[in-house]
Amino acid sequence: MKAHVYVTLKRTVLDAQGQTVADALHRMQYRGVADVRQGKYFVLTLDDGLEHAEAEAEVGRIAREVLTNPVIEECSFRLED
Amino acid sequence: MKAHVYVTLKRTVLDAQGQTVADALHRMQYRGVADVRQGKYFVLTLDDGLEHAEAEAEVGRIAREVLTNPVIEECSFRLED
Repeated sequence: MKAHVYVTLKRTVLDAQGQTVADALHRMQYRGVADVRQGKYFVLTLDDGLEHAEAEAEVGRIAREVLTNPVIEECSFRLED
Repeated sequence: MKAHVYVTLKRTVLDAQGQTVADALHRMQYRGVADVRQGKYFVLTLDDGLEHAEAEAEVGRIAREVLTNPVIEECSFRLED
């Protein structure tokens, strides 16, 4: 089973990196992009035999307690069988 | 419309950052994680009125040509209405 964890800056936090990408896209003449936010993406390969509910609880803890800085970031995740 | 772009190192490329996260999780007694790969995650807010097919083509170009280093990375994306 794999878990996909997405960590992004909170909406209220300035995302300088994303803004830089957006500016670069405009300079490079790419069209249609109003805004860019950049975040982190983790793919966790979980041990075989881990039950779905157990995996959900453990990945939730890891995402919130280790992968995310709760002061400025928020996270979401999904499990893939 | 929003586009979510996921950029990860190719499987054949050593992911030192992901390995460091995996080692840290083990040291911190989190259970059930066999491997971690770390990548980048971009949320692109697209201009209103962009058609779905047009958005798909433009986001595909941006993902492949700007956000991904094709030598070592691969990317995928999805559109969200």
